[in-house]
Amino acid sequence: MSEIKEPYYETVGKEIEIFQVAADLRLPLLLKGPTGSGKSRFLEYMAFRMKRRLITILCNDETSSVDLVGRYLVKGSDTIWQDGPLTHGVREGAIVYLDEVAEARPDTLVAIHSLTDHRRILYIDRKNEEVSAHPDFLLVASFNPGYQRGFKELKPSTRQRFLSMDFPYPSPKVENKILMGETNIDEKISKRLIEYANMVRNKPELGLAETISTRLLVSCAFLIRSGLPPRLAARTSIILPLTDDPDTIASLQDSFNLIL
Amino acid sequence: MSEIKEPYYETVGKEIEIFQVAADLRLPLLLKGPTGSGKSRFLEYMAFRMKRRLITILCNDETSSVDLVGRYLVKGSDTIWQDGPLTHGVREGAIVYLDEVAEARPDTLVAIHSLTDHRRILYIDRKNEEVSAHPDFLLVASFNPGYQRGFKELKPSTRQRFLSMDFPYPSPKVENKILMGETNIDEKISKRLIEYANMVRNKPELGLAETISTRLLVSCAFLIRSGLPPRLAARTSIILPLTDDPDTIASLQDSFNLIL
Amino acid sequence: MSEIKEPYYETVGKEIEIFQVAADLRLPLLLKGPTGSGKSRFLEYMAFRMKRRLITILCNDETSSVDLVGRYLVKGSDTIWQDGPLTHGVREGAIVYLDEVAEARPDTLVAIHSLTDHRRILYIDRKNEEVSAHPDFLLVASFNPGYQRGFKELKPSTRQRFLSMDFPYPSPKVENKILMGETNIDEKISKRLIEYANMVRNKPELGLAETISTRLLVSCAFLIRSGLPPRLAARTSIILPLTDDPDTIASLQDSFNLIL
Amino acid sequence: MSEIKEPYYETVGKEIEIFQVAADLRLPLLLKGPTGSGKSRFLEYMAFRMKRRLITILCNDETSSVDLVGRYLVKGSDTIWQDGPLTHGVREGAIVYLDEVAEARPDTLVAIHSLTDHRRILYIDRKNEEVSAHPDFLLVASFNPGYQRGFKELKPSTRQRFLSMDFPYPSPKVENKILMGETNIDEKISKRLIEYANMVRNKPELGLAETISTRLLVSCAFLIRSGLPPRLAARTSIILPLTDDPDTIASLQDSFNLIL
Amino acid sequence: MSEIKEPYYETVGKEIEIFQVAADLRLPLLLKGPTGSGKSRFLEYMAFRMKRRLITILCNDETSSVDLVGRYLVKGSDTIWQDGPLTHGVREGAIVYLDEVAEARPDTLVAIHSLTDHRRILYIDRKNEEVSAHPDFLLVASFNPGYQRGFKELKPSTRQRFLSMDFPYPSPKVENKILMGETNIDEKISKRLIEYANMVRNKPELGLAETISTRLLVSCAFLIRSGLPPRLAARTSIILPLTDDPDTIASLQDSFNLIL
Amino acid sequence: MSEIKEPYYETVGKEIEIFQVAADLRLPLLLKGPTGSGKSRFLEYMAFRMKRRLITILCNDETSSVDLVGRYLVKGSDTIWQDGPLTHGVREGAIVYLDEVAEARPDTLVAIHSLTDHRRILYIDRKNEEVSAHPDFLLVASFNPGYQRGFKELKPSTRQRFLSMDFPYPSPKVENKILMGETNIDEKISKRLIEYANMVRNKPELGLAETISTRLLVSCAFLIRSGLPPRLAARTSIILPLTDDPDTIASLQDSFNLIL
Repeated sequence: MSEIKEPYYETVGKEIEIFQVAADLRLPLLLKGPTGSGKSRFLEYMAFRMKRRLITILCNDETSSVDLVGRYLVKGSDTIWQDGPLTHGVREGAIVYLDEVAEARPDTLVAIHSLTDHRRILYIDRKNEEVSAHPDFLLVASFNPGYQRGFKELKPSTRQRFLSMDFPYPSPKVENKILMGETNIDEKISKRLIEYANMVRNKPELGLAETISTRLLVSCAFLIRSGLPPRLAARTSIILPLTDDPDTIASLQDSFNLIL
Repeated sequence: MSEIKEPYYETVGKEIEIFQVAADLRLPLLLKGPTGSGKSRFLEYMAFRMKRRLITILCNDETSSVDLVGRYLVKGSDTIWQDGPLTHGVREGAIVYLDEVAEARPDTLVAIHSLTDHRRILYIDRKNEEVSAHPDFLLVASFNPGYQRGFKELKPSTRQRFLSMDFPYPSPKVENKILMGETNIDEKISKRLIEYANMVRNKPELGLAETISTRLLVSCAFLIRSGLPPRLAARTSIILPLTDDPDTIASLQDSFNLIL
Repeated sequence: MSEIKEPYYETVGKEIEIFQVAADLRLPLLLKGPTGSGKSRFLEYMAFRMKRRLITILCNDETSSVDLVGRYLVKGSDTIWQDGPLTHGVREGAIVYLDEVAEARPDTLVAIHSLTDHRRILYIDRKNEEVSAHPDFLLVASFNPGYQRGFKELKPSTRQRFLSMDFPYPSPKVENKILMGETNIDEKISKRLIEYANMVRNKPELGLAETISTRLLVSCAFLIRSGLPPRLAARTSIILPLTDDPDTIASLQDSFNLIL
Repeated sequence: MSEIKEPYYETVGKEIEIFQVAADLRLPLLLKGPTGSGKSRFLEYMAFRMKRRLITILCNDETSSVDLVGRYLVKGSDTIWQDGPLTHGVREGAIVYLDEVAEARPDTLVAIHSLTDHRRILYIDRKNEEVSAHPDFLLVASFNPGYQRGFKELKPSTRQRFLSMDFPYPSPKVENKILMGETNIDEKISKRLIEYANMVRNKPELGLAETISTRLLVSCAFLIRSGLPPRLAARTSIILPLTDDPDTIASLQDSFNLIL
Repeated sequence: MSEIKEPYYETVGKEIEIFQVAADLRLPLLLKGPTGSGKSRFLEYMAFRMKRRLITILCNDETSSVDLVGRYLVKGSDTIWQDGPLTHGVREGAIVYLDEVAEARPDTLVAIHSLTDHRRILYIDRKNEEVSAHPDFLLVASFNPGYQRGFKELKPSTRQRFLSMDFPYPSPKVENKILMGETNIDEKISKRLIEYANMVRNKPELGLAETISTRLLVSCAFLIRSGLPPRLAARTSIILPLTDDPDTIASLQDSFNLIL
Repeated sequence: MSEIKEPYYETVGKEIEIFQVAADLRLPLLLKGPTGSGKSRFLEYMAFRMKRRLITILCNDETSSVDLVGRYLVKGSDTIWQDGPLTHGVREGAIVYLDEVAEARPDTLVAIHSLTDHRRILYIDRKNEEVSAHPDFLLVASFNPGYQRGFKELKPSTRQRFLSMDFPYPSPKVENKILMGETNIDEKISKRLIEYANMVRNKPELGLAETISTRLLVSCAFLIRSGLPPRLAARTSIILPLTDDPDTIASLQDSFNLIL
């Protein structure tokens, strides 16, 4: 659910305008970008701004239509229907966020399709009920195109139903604002951390599955502010979370030691 | 369910005549064509014209005979039978549309076979009941032969039971009519968008899983009409929905910038 | 269930004699042949001639012993047994037809084995009941040896329990009789369609999964008789149902245009 | 269940002595041999001779411990235990025959192991009950080592628990006795059929998954005695049941025509 | 359950001392060795000697935590908990023997882990109950490292929780004592059988999945004492149980004929 | 559950400080290291020190969200909810330890994600209930990066949510303290055992899946103190638990014999 106090969010590009147009036109939206680049935070911010409830559903290999739409539960000798989170959002006009939608089982697309075109209805086949979406209902999904291992993709017939926005890492200036805003870290340290992050981000030869995200920098800044020596903080919050390979660990640690 | 006001539809070829003959002869029909080429819209239009209900079933990996035909539900201490959408259509004489039929599980073909030959009956084995199809019942299915990833095909013994129509993208003239008719976009912009689409459609070397559909052009026109700059509109509604590859994104954006 | 009026059937070879001997000796029979070559029609005809009920079971990847033999159903607080179609046929002396038997799950063979040897019993293990087959009970199965994709085969220990008949496409003379008898098409057109079919059947280099069956010719004749131009009729009822490859479609259409 | 009149059986080697010793020592027995070589018939004969009930369980991919040992069934509001066929046999002292045991799921071996060593007990874990085998209980299994496709094998730790007998096809003299004894066919024809069978059996270059079994010869003799011409009888009962390959069919038919 | 009279057992090495120390230290024990080398017999002997109950669980592909720990059963309108064999053993202080533990499903390890370290508790998650092991409880598992086909291995994190003992075939002298002790066979024949076994055991070039175990020799001795000619006895109890390959069968039979 | 007396623990590096900072910041923590290097023991120690309950969940292939979060159980005619161990820990403020988290099924991550970021809530979808974590709740997971066989990895989007610590084997000095502290073994023997362990740890050419852990040395010391000859103790507690390969066994035994 959406938080009550305004979430901290630094704007990166035209994301607020695009989101607003999509919401006005009631068109579904797909956010593409790497782990920890701020997609979830952006949605929390937009939900707060637009005063709508945000319902997040983290999709995985076993997420099925039933998990989204609802199911019958047996309670004693009664059988009662329980709406799933998507159905809640459709009825109440929430922003429903399908995080990592490509991971979900294919039958979830059934539920989505009729919500993403001019019909805007959710068909609950087990109840033989059609729910017309509340005017405020907005469907948002996320997708990480950089995953090398998974090879999971969205079907073109599904992707073409969504407007798309990409969500790269923020510029150094914006990232510095985020770090200082969230953790109260000293500006000099913040800039060094970002310098380090961008050096690593520009080295694809390191072979990392993903590179240093803003979230990792935030964790590192927290550890330093808690009194952990910077090098141990970086090891704990950045280097070991990124890789298990001893040589890569050594190389990342060396680079860090040169900077901080 | 079919809409009450007449759906907007621009005829492309002989599709209306063929559909009419198939309906008169009560022969099932398979629509072959890419995503967003207007198959669903055509069916909505024909259903409206012929005053029949349209029941759409989006098939997927987990669509089984039970989802189509029906199931027993336990309600308290009673067990009641619930007709599935196919059974509804068979009884009432609707047009039943199995969208992306090749995705469904093989046992759905059992339900289909006896409906597609001279018998025109639906056998509900769990109830040991045979339902003779209403004279107006018509079975339509769709299939996207261009999917490179899926390798899912219909068995010849199933395909041969359907008449087939292909559904390519419309000609520029028809596509222009559709764009302007649906979105009220300025004609000059409409023609430019179509010019762009056809340029991309004729470049198989881009390696796109699917190319620019009419649906994507309609989205783009809506975004432009909502005030988004054309290049950002194209990025949001056409380019990012089609690909994740940075080079292809850049190349598609460059081509667009030259045209609009 | 068997039809009341005599089904139209043109005899092709010795199939009636062989069927009669198998029925007299109570030996099970396997029909081998491609899609649409008339196996089902032949059985309907024989069932009518021999005044026996015909029960057809279309087998698929998920057909299991339970689907054939029967199951317990929970109705309210009672549990009642429901005979499956094979059990019905065994008790009443019907012809039970397992269409595409190689597709069924292996446990269906358990039900079949004891019915196909001198024992002629069906063992219902869930009820611990043995049903001796009615003297008129006859088991027939079909199998399409031409499928290239499926690689599904019957185990030798199962195949050797059936007498086998092959069911090729009929000779031009017989096929002409069938076309005219079923559709009242003009003889000249009928002969041209058959000429076309045999030309295509003799071109394995086209790489079709299956070739033009009698059923497809019958559909085409119907469309022509309904007023569709022959070339569009052939495209709709023969060419597009056989292939999705644009070059093969063009080649098949060209050949047709030369003939009709 | 075993038949009441004495089954026809021609002895081939020392099989009766070995079986008798195994039964006296209460050691389990594995019959190895191709389809239709008379394993089942031999067991029917021995069961008759030793006046024991024969319970046959045809194993397949889905045969599990529950199918052999038993299960709980819900009947109305009661749950009652139903012994499976193995448990029946263990209690009553029957000969239990696991036909094609290598096909069964691995958990069936749990049920078997404690029955095959000095313990001779069946442990029903769902009931937490141990059943000591009746002194007359004998476990027999069959296995076809010639299957090329299946690659299913018994684990050594299971195989070593069984004495083994091989069951090749009978000698011409014995096979002639069987054919004449079962079908009353003319001796000259019987000998020709056997001559044909042995010619085919000695041609591994034909690439047949299995070769002509005694059972197929018996079927052929029945068809000839019913009046079918010998060549059509051989095609129906021997050649088409063995192969789908047109060249092999032609070659097998030619060889037959030379002999009969 | 453990037998009442003392099981026959010939000691091979230091196995009794190691077992006793493991039991005193309450450390779990893994027996490694080929089929039929006497692991189960050793455990029966030790259980008798130490006056503890022996509970044997034969693991397989489908053995899950539920099979070991227990399950809820519905009886009429009540739901009652039934302890599994491992839980029985933990409560009562039995020796629980997981035969072929590597075959079991991975969730069984959950049940095992907390029993194998200093905690010695069994956590029954469905009941939210922790059972502290009885002081006499001892966990023993077996594993056959020679299986070439299975490739199933124990995870290092599981293996390192067990002390290990290997269980090779016994020396000729010990094996002779076993054969004569169990079957009362003539000493000369016993020695010849063992000579034969060791000749075969030293020929890895035969390509046998497993070689001649003591158990097979015991079976052979029983058959000879029952009056079967030695060569037929060896074929039935040793050679055919070991292999299906005709050349290997012939070669094993020839070698035997030279010796006996 | 955490033990009542203080667990024995020798500190290795900065692990206590890091753990304390993570707990203060309420950030989840991932322990990376090989089998038997003391991860579990460290957690027991920290739980004791911080006076929090430790709940350990050993993850495996079949660990699902339901196992962590809870499930409905049918008891007679009632359906009652039972909290899973994670839910217990979240409510009560325990340290919840997901041992070998990479083995768990992907839907477990759903439960974890919202607990690992600023929300710190557990969403129980079946109950439609959100549980805010107790301030003392701390999530810890372990992961063994050295497993060569499994290839199971955590998704980057999950890993980046955890701070990481590595847990190598202790230095000889620390390991000596541990051995003597736990087993009261003679110091000379303790040092020899550690010398042996380090020699083996530095020989990757032995091809061991894992090398000698501190846990194995502790077992060996126990066996020696129970009176088993050192060489047999090493064979039983170190060598046979590490490998099945006869040559490697011989080589490991030879090396040991040189040292002790």
